[in-house]
Amino acid sequence: MTKEEMIECSVCHSKLVKPTTKTVSRAYDQYRSKTPKKNRALNVLLVVGDCMLVGLQPILVYMSKVDGKFSFSPLSVNLLTEVAKVVFALVMLLIQARNQKPGEKSLLSLSTFVQAARNNVLLAVPALLYAINNYLKFIMQLYFNPATVKMLSNLKVLVIAVLLKIIMKRRFSIIQWEALTLLLIGISLNQISSLPEGPAAMGLPVAMGAYIYTFIFVTVPSLASVFNEYALKSQYDTSIYLQNLFLYGYGAIFNFLGILGTVVIQGPESFDIFQGHSKATMLLIINNAGQGILSSFFFKYADTILKKYSSTVATIFTGFASAALFGHTLTINFMLGISIVFISMHQFFSPLSDVKEEENGVLELESVKKTDRSLC
Amino acid sequence: MTKEEMIECSVCHSKLVKPTTKTVSRAYDQYRSKTPKKNRALNVLLVVGDCMLVGLQPILVYMSKVDGKFSFSPLSVNLLTEVAKVVFALVMLLIQARNQKPGEKSLLSLSTFVQAARNNVLLAVPALLYAINNYLKFIMQLYFNPATVKMLSNLKVLVIAVLLKIIMKRRFSIIQWEALTLLLIGISLNQISSLPEGPAAMGLPVAMGAYIYTFIFVTVPSLASVFNEYALKSQYDTSIYLQNLFLYGYGAIFNFLGILGTVVIQGPESFDIFQGHSKATMLLIINNAGQGILSSFFFKYADTILKKYSSTVATIFTGFASAALFGHTLTINFMLGISIVFISMHQFFSPLSDVKEEENGVLELESVKKTDRSLC
Repeated sequence: MTKEEMIECSVCHSKLVKPTTKTVSRAYDQYRSKTPKKNRALNVLLVVGDCMLVGLQPILVYMSKVDGKFSFSPLSVNLLTEVAKVVFALVMLLIQARNQKPGEKSLLSLSTFVQAARNNVLLAVPALLYAINNYLKFIMQLYFNPATVKMLSNLKVLVIAVLLKIIMKRRFSIIQWEALTLLLIGISLNQISSLPEGPAAMGLPVAMGAYIYTFIFVTVPSLASVFNEYALKSQYDTSIYLQNLFLYGYGAIFNFLGILGTVVIQGPESFDIFQGHSKATMLLIINNAGQGILSSFFFKYADTILKKYSSTVATIFTGFASAALFGHTLTINFMLGISIVFISMHQFFSPLSDVKEEENGVLELESVKKTDRSLC
Repeated sequence: MTKEEMIECSVCHSKLVKPTTKTVSRAYDQYRSKTPKKNRALNVLLVVGDCMLVGLQPILVYMSKVDGKFSFSPLSVNLLTEVAKVVFALVMLLIQARNQKPGEKSLLSLSTFVQAARNNVLLAVPALLYAINNYLKFIMQLYFNPATVKMLSNLKVLVIAVLLKIIMKRRFSIIQWEALTLLLIGISLNQISSLPEGPAAMGLPVAMGAYIYTFIFVTVPSLASVFNEYALKSQYDTSIYLQNLFLYGYGAIFNFLGILGTVVIQGPESFDIFQGHSKATMLLIINNAGQGILSSFFFKYADTILKKYSSTVATIFTGFASAALFGHTLTINFMLGISIVFISMHQFFSPLSDVKEEENGVLELESVKKTDRSLC
């Protein structure tokens, strides 16, 4: 129906030029600069919520294990999480539709749905990557200890930044790249301090195969997050609940296909998705679903980097909490690491470190000229 | 002769309003912004020279010890260092005077000398503080191990910045304060990695008296450096060799008085200033003299902060050199520490982190207006 460069408007059905990544990022930036206060309040809310959910997760994972192992299929947890998110998105969509003003086009009409589904087909990409990643995550937690998993996860910070630059055409100032490097250093210091000494005790993989595995483990979720941010922002006018519905719908489908594959390989007994589940695993599923929903808000209204900082702050709080609860002493490394993380955070979000319009420096001058004239 | 607020011009002998700290700093800033390229080349030269001298010092100190002790009076090293610096300043002054153009007022005339001496009387303050500090330094090296001395010295970074703000009215941006904190963290990490484990092995003082001692040990040299910078820059037109002559002259006098005091207390045998000296101590004296001379160039043409960064880079090179020579492994902490130091250095000197003229934001606009007009 539409040419590759054209796209149909979901409201007036007119053919439009398909937005490029540059226009996606610009349009979003314009939105941002219009609502700085509302934006900041939302960011704080997102970070606080995320900290609570991320902080709870290791406890729930621990509680879900029976004799140090998971007695249920990891795929089933993922499928149930997707289903929980789909249910949440549906409920929110119904609430939003009820509160619509009389003049507006109904959110629940079939034509809106079909049009939005077509426009948001790109969400299948992050959904697939997430499905792969969720499976990898469980595998990693079985083969490496949680500290090592967290340690390797740190590298995501820089990988995400590089992907944002490539896919979203986002530009970071030198100070911001330095801030991200400082974040990586700060998190690593925090973790070195909490790990037993010696490289052997850290359980770090040394074989070549393990490096490839690590590379995949770091790149897949980073790619998923950045693609998700891209897909959500490129259809900025579609309701986030509708977008979530597609994302989680695709997610549920991919996870279901994964389970079907397992059935083919391992036989039909692994088809019982409720096998081995307990109250703790249900809580884990709700926690996972909550984190997933929050993520989409991060990606659409803030960005992947803020999500990373949020997780780091959560880790720091977990560190303080475990020190308070279990009487661990806070090492010099941990304190130095925290200082670095907070300096990094301030530098990354400081207006001082904003990218200057170097390529078209005239633009800046133009805007000052305007101010100049308006002052006259 | 002159009132407290007035000062006599050294060339035309007219009475002038004494420059305030604000005008000192402004006048210097103007000089800096006029010659950015020449300035940068000089800075690089200063840092390279300083790195070499600072790197050599621990080796010479080690070589100067006999059975782990100094067999000579520390005061005599200081006095001889001051004498070496006076000789150097005199030689350079003679060379400068020979290269003067016929029209210029002779650098060697008595009137120039007396006038300059009167204007630069403030140099006696840093000279006294240095004399005290040099004595403290030797004492510290005897009672604490060198690693602890270096560790405590790190605090100077922030003390110097605070003193520069108070005395020189220098303004640092938030990014620059953060960069200085990062420098402190980076150096500390480097040193934690090279120290034996446990607080006892670090030989850190724990008694209250030791804290006071540490406070003095950190504040005296910081105060000396900042006062030196102030005194040298406030008489920017006086030849640096003439200023050095006064500074080191005062230094020699204070050190001589110190020796006299020792003679009174300990008896005349300690008056033999060459007692216990060897070729190694002579090299140490030349190295000390070289560092002192370089410092005055740092203070007059760059600043105390650049001197601190320079010393840190020297320490890093020493770390690499000792790793290469003695086969030490470089720890993760050391590598993370170095990364932080270099990020800090870039951030501190980055034009992005320059202090904005926040108080009179109109100024910025004014300057753009000018550009604007010149473009029309």
